[in-house]
Amino acid sequence: MLSHEDIKNIISRSILTLDLKGEPESLYQPIEYMVSVGGKRVRPRLCLTVFNLFSDNVGNDIIYPAIALEMFHEFSLMHDDIMDNSDTRRNQPTVFKKWGTSKAILSGDVMLLLAYKYMSFCNAEVMPEALRLFTDTAVKVCEGQQFDMDFEEKPFITMSDYISMIGLKTGVLLACSAKMGALIAGVSREIRDALYQFGYQLGLAFQIADDYLDTFGDQQIFGKKIGDDIVNDKKTWLQVECIRRAEGADKERLASILEMGEDMREEKVAAMQQLYIDLGIKDDARDAILEYHNKAFEAISGIGLNEVQTRQLHQFAEQLIHREK
Amino acid sequence: MLSHEDIKNIISRSILTLDLKGEPESLYQPIEYMVSVGGKRVRPRLCLTVFNLFSDNVGNDIIYPAIALEMFHEFSLMHDDIMDNSDTRRNQPTVFKKWGTSKAILSGDVMLLLAYKYMSFCNAEVMPEALRLFTDTAVKVCEGQQFDMDFEEKPFITMSDYISMIGLKTGVLLACSAKMGALIAGVSREIRDALYQFGYQLGLAFQIADDYLDTFGDQQIFGKKIGDDIVNDKKTWLQVECIRRAEGADKERLASILEMGEDMREEKVAAMQQLYIDLGIKDDARDAILEYHNKAFEAISGIGLNEVQTRQLHQFAEQLIHREK
Repeated sequence: MLSHEDIKNIISRSILTLDLKGEPESLYQPIEYMVSVGGKRVRPRLCLTVFNLFSDNVGNDIIYPAIALEMFHEFSLMHDDIMDNSDTRRNQPTVFKKWGTSKAILSGDVMLLLAYKYMSFCNAEVMPEALRLFTDTAVKVCEGQQFDMDFEEKPFITMSDYISMIGLKTGVLLACSAKMGALIAGVSREIRDALYQFGYQLGLAFQIADDYLDTFGDQQIFGKKIGDDIVNDKKTWLQVECIRRAEGADKERLASILEMGEDMREEKVAAMQQLYIDLGIKDDARDAILEYHNKAFEAISGIGLNEVQTRQLHQFAEQLIHREK
Repeated sequence: MLSHEDIKNIISRSILTLDLKGEPESLYQPIEYMVSVGGKRVRPRLCLTVFNLFSDNVGNDIIYPAIALEMFHEFSLMHDDIMDNSDTRRNQPTVFKKWGTSKAILSGDVMLLLAYKYMSFCNAEVMPEALRLFTDTAVKVCEGQQFDMDFEEKPFITMSDYISMIGLKTGVLLACSAKMGALIAGVSREIRDALYQFGYQLGLAFQIADDYLDTFGDQQIFGKKIGDDIVNDKKTWLQVECIRRAEGADKERLASILEMGEDMREEKVAAMQQLYIDLGIKDDARDAILEYHNKAFEAISGIGLNEVQTRQLHQFAEQLIHREK
């Protein structure tokens, strides 16, 4: 079985050697930029990790579909950045800010098409199911983004709305990544479906960890400014839980924090951090992350993975949710 | 063999019965709107017409891929309308104007995904090739849109640049439509490739006919204001040819027309129409349309189609290029 380091290297090297040049250059430049800025490559790594639990035969028919998942993810970020009017991502200017809306739309479209091109490397036998899984997932991710934007217009949402939304925006793509690896490795439907659930629950844990780090992370390590979610009144696990929980004087404290404008950035972030701590939300967020992490492993408890396979997934999950960036 | 009317009806009815509802409604409403406003459905009709030359077995494995081509086309229009800042299409407000940029991006993305969903209805044997054809074509259409936008920044382009650009923006999708029908009908590669060329050349004729109608069409029938291309200094077959051809006094005439602002709409359109007529460009545009039409039929002259099959394609082409809307 490959080490996590090996898997990371295989993915990075494969992405590095993709031929992303084409004509007109103005269309392909933003794609190369987006891909090279890169991220944690969580989705292709999960896909390859799961595949490698069952098969050592690591070739193009798994590597390209794994990269398709990353390409889809990057496409969705490129379009989201337009809709969210985001200036920076991963400490770099977004394609939208650097090249404008039209480029970010059209280069994004090509990235989605490239994702399908890479998907077509999987074996003919599994292709119909792999494509169905990929397309269904992609539609759900778009639905999640729309729910997210619709929720922005609402003063508050329930925790159940929030979990459904991040389930669509983040959960299903990790679910799809795990299941894709299992599908291409040729394991039974029961195991594939359990791994889908595993990825889904892990995706929820991953997103709540992201919410947590945006408010309580270390800026040097996290790679972006701490407190952006608070400043933008973004709906996060912490905020949704805070609105649900705050009563009496705390409710008034919360209302006055939400009223602070962008000019009071530092005060606003500090006040909200303190309120989260006072209401026990900081600690409970860590518990919630652990809860979804545990649900992920419950989902695969009955499918007969041996100790080595289970440890491999545990190590992957640890990296994901006990990360600092 | 089905009549052209039958084919039209099969396509319209199939599109009408698509299930385009979903959650959140705000994401699916623009898709239903875009699809219901509809158009000439040229691409699915060409796909089904070609299929039906070789097979009477018209089922979901050809109808859905045909509709995928329409869905892709509508996706590209929805995104193009943002980039081109277009207010209306087919006499109706664009999705971009009606619901804003974010909706037009995200609903467009879902339409592209639906196109892939419909493509997955084709037979497993042809699926790898069908998907490769579809994805390669889709990438080219995006490249064409980028060339089009890049050309907008240039004072003039050559006719060869123009033909390459419309080949990507319009030619390859008609080419793909014809080839897809042939591929799913199970005919030989030689015939499929000839039909690709047929669709490509027909696509060029179709686009030049569109350029012609925008300047010399009948507004009542054409369904949009005559002269928009002239007012926007859009690069069309007519304009590119005019810049190439105008010399001396005509060159000065052209320069002064291009300088007229939007406030002089009627004068500008009338003056440009007259210049096109004086330079023989109006007549030559009709000749160019005919030339590409003829090239389309030369491309399939050697593949052994019988009289009935050939007549069917001739009738289809006639509708396309001798149309008034």
